[in-house]
Amino acid sequence: MQPGTIADHTLLHRNQNPVGSLSQALLGWHPPMNPYFDHNATTPLCPAARSAWLEANERLWHNASSLYREAGAARRRLEEAREELADWLGCEAPERVIFTSGATEGNQAVMRHAAAQAGGKRVFLSAVEHPSLREPARREFGPDAVVELPQMADGVAGVDALGDESERPAWVSLMAANNETGVLQPWRQAAAWCRGAGVPFHTDASQWIGKLPCGGMADEVDWITGCAHKFGGPKGVGFLVIPEEAVGRLRVAVGGPQEGGHRAGTEDLPGILAMMAALREKSDAWLEQEHRRWLEEREAFELALPDRLPGVRVVAPKIERLWNTTMIILPGSDSNLKWLTRLSDRGFAVSTGSACSAGKGAPSRVLAAMGLAPEEMGRVLRLSGGWETTPADWEALADALVAVAADLAEGRPTVRLGG
Amino acid sequence: MQPGTIADHTLLHRNQNPVGSLSQALLGWHPPMNPYFDHNATTPLCPAARSAWLEANERLWHNASSLYREAGAARRRLEEAREELADWLGCEAPERVIFTSGATEGNQAVMRHAAAQAGGKRVFLSAVEHPSLREPARREFGPDAVVELPQMADGVAGVDALGDESERPAWVSLMAANNETGVLQPWRQAAAWCRGAGVPFHTDASQWIGKLPCGGMADEVDWITGCAHKFGGPKGVGFLVIPEEAVGRLRVAVGGPQEGGHRAGTEDLPGILAMMAALREKSDAWLEQEHRRWLEEREAFELALPDRLPGVRVVAPKIERLWNTTMIILPGSDSNLKWLTRLSDRGFAVSTGSACSAGKGAPSRVLAAMGLAPEEMGRVLRLSGGWETTPADWEALADALVAVAADLAEGRPTVRLGG
Repeated sequence: MQPGTIADHTLLHRNQNPVGSLSQALLGWHPPMNPYFDHNATTPLCPAARSAWLEANERLWHNASSLYREAGAARRRLEEAREELADWLGCEAPERVIFTSGATEGNQAVMRHAAAQAGGKRVFLSAVEHPSLREPARREFGPDAVVELPQMADGVAGVDALGDESERPAWVSLMAANNETGVLQPWRQAAAWCRGAGVPFHTDASQWIGKLPCGGMADEVDWITGCAHKFGGPKGVGFLVIPEEAVGRLRVAVGGPQEGGHRAGTEDLPGILAMMAALREKSDAWLEQEHRRWLEEREAFELALPDRLPGVRVVAPKIERLWNTTMIILPGSDSNLKWLTRLSDRGFAVSTGSACSAGKGAPSRVLAAMGLAPEEMGRVLRLSGGWETTPADWEALADALVAVAADLAEGRPTVRLGG
Repeated sequence: MQPGTIADHTLLHRNQNPVGSLSQALLGWHPPMNPYFDHNATTPLCPAARSAWLEANERLWHNASSLYREAGAARRRLEEAREELADWLGCEAPERVIFTSGATEGNQAVMRHAAAQAGGKRVFLSAVEHPSLREPARREFGPDAVVELPQMADGVAGVDALGDESERPAWVSLMAANNETGVLQPWRQAAAWCRGAGVPFHTDASQWIGKLPCGGMADEVDWITGCAHKFGGPKGVGFLVIPEEAVGRLRVAVGGPQEGGHRAGTEDLPGILAMMAALREKSDAWLEQEHRRWLEEREAFELALPDRLPGVRVVAPKIERLWNTTMIILPGSDSNLKWLTRLSDRGFAVSTGSACSAGKGAPSRVLAAMGLAPEEMGRVLRLSGGWETTPADWEALADALVAVAADLAEGRPTVRLGG
């Protein structure tokens, strides 16, 4: 399919995704319906979440800690949301669920709590943890007390090493799925080992929740971080699951009785209800049913691409990854930024790594841990589709990559006019 | 005016404020249009904020740290918001403005930073600080290193004492306006003293901003906390102003380059733009023009009430207070909770103190510091109107108080069925 033919797809409305029109006019080209391949950075707000937010701001905006009738209604909805999430995740005690402002706040609080309990012992992390976990670990424990688990090939943390260490960790954190490569981590295995050894275990499941079934996760894992804007909920909302023994002891923020005393500050009920609405749509049953198809669609893209774009390589091709994520090493010598800009001109949103580190331009620690050369790291693109990405969207992305390769080969300049 | 006549006012739509209908049906009574007198706890989302939030989620939902065109547009809007707020507050460097999840997060970060810089010196706070400031001060400095400023009559912090102390404080925090009594604090005087003495000064201006002009505040004060849901913005958003010397040094959260490295975590641009839309409506010029009228309307209520409700007393009657706030000590021996429940049955939302401490039922530290007896503290109500509260609303509230007094005198039970 040539870029020029993609306009036919615009009749199928699968997502609201307005793109700049000036470059389109210049190129005589129209974007496909869903050219957004950066879902691991953030997702558009889903309609159910928007409705829930609006309804809450219309009828449940009162302070849930106040004592009149409307505040009581807000309080009930807040606690219902907590119970619903606790049930889903398999927490017997709803007090285990703390609503937060997002994964970063959760990870900070977890590491501060962990360090306060450590008694001089060290914390073990994978080499591919998100900086919002790794940096607070270094801040709270001190850099010398942060131990990196060995890195297996293809970006999987070597959790077997936990049993080999003569040292008993104060704490183990291992993310559920990596944000850059999509590689699924052996969190179940690490959780089981930690439970047996009596070591607290935490998983940052920000990229997992909403993409793969998570029912019962809190049965296996004591500490879980989740983040709404990764699964169609609003920005600025997330949750933290803590074990029963930390109930009444963990402090995300002090100075108020909200969230059972775990997190002071007026509860963002509209945000929380919007998050729950988004999460409810991504039911375990639906994800279980659909995720294999989505995986096949991405695999078709990965299989077909090298024929059309000789020299391209997929990172961790044989490894279990999130169904939506593929990281590729581009052919040629042009930097990933040149590709990103030209793909953006064509309406496609992709990433050179995680959005969190993209602003910095620093080399990816995740890819370094996987053994990529610095020169290769400068040619990676992360492509992360979503629940509504179609085979046609993946095909249109392949078309765009081929067209950009031709532009670069022929030295055509970017038409980028904005941002 | 009798309660039965208030229904006439329902034609004047001044606010969306649905109230329970069952008790109304039972009482044959209809609420006035704006029976919400708990604005110091939270405010309804204003239409401009709602529109801004929806527009941002429609068109600017991309991750502001990503690098494609749409993300660049989000980044620009984020930085424009920062510059607008910086200009308003009088910060030459926009980097002084950090967007947060609310006042509580801001206050926690300020106290952690202050304690790390303290060098063994102590922090001086007023006795009426919000717990979200006082508790982190105790956590970060240790309880013995928190000094309370003397309390003048009527809830004003005695900042003259700063100059009398032989000890030079590590830090001084004084809120701009008290959340419970509305009493304005001498923050300008404290800021001037601190500037002269080279001591960092912080004000939690959560209750001031949006109610009184704040243009240029950052000229006088190095550290300022603000909170969106206190002025018609969404919950879960706020800001912190830091001095230039703290730029690049303060850390609200580590592990990402967002907010100039001051606060890791994906920026909540929809929330930030909604906050700015709400704040923009409360312009200095408008507040300057209107707040005297609002003050007169509240004073008319305070002056008339004792004739209709003999024995009622206003707390700090002669002291400069927020134009929207009045705290009363109820007559008789019934607890404020009995009054609150019966006012709620009549559709009125009031508070027995700050919402943050109301859930706990603990006596108010603010009122204790003002010398109220415990028995009196059990009979206070905080009434906090808003920008759209009318004289008729205040009058309707007085009617309701009179009616509740009669109910209590005659032993009529509450019809409370919910919350």
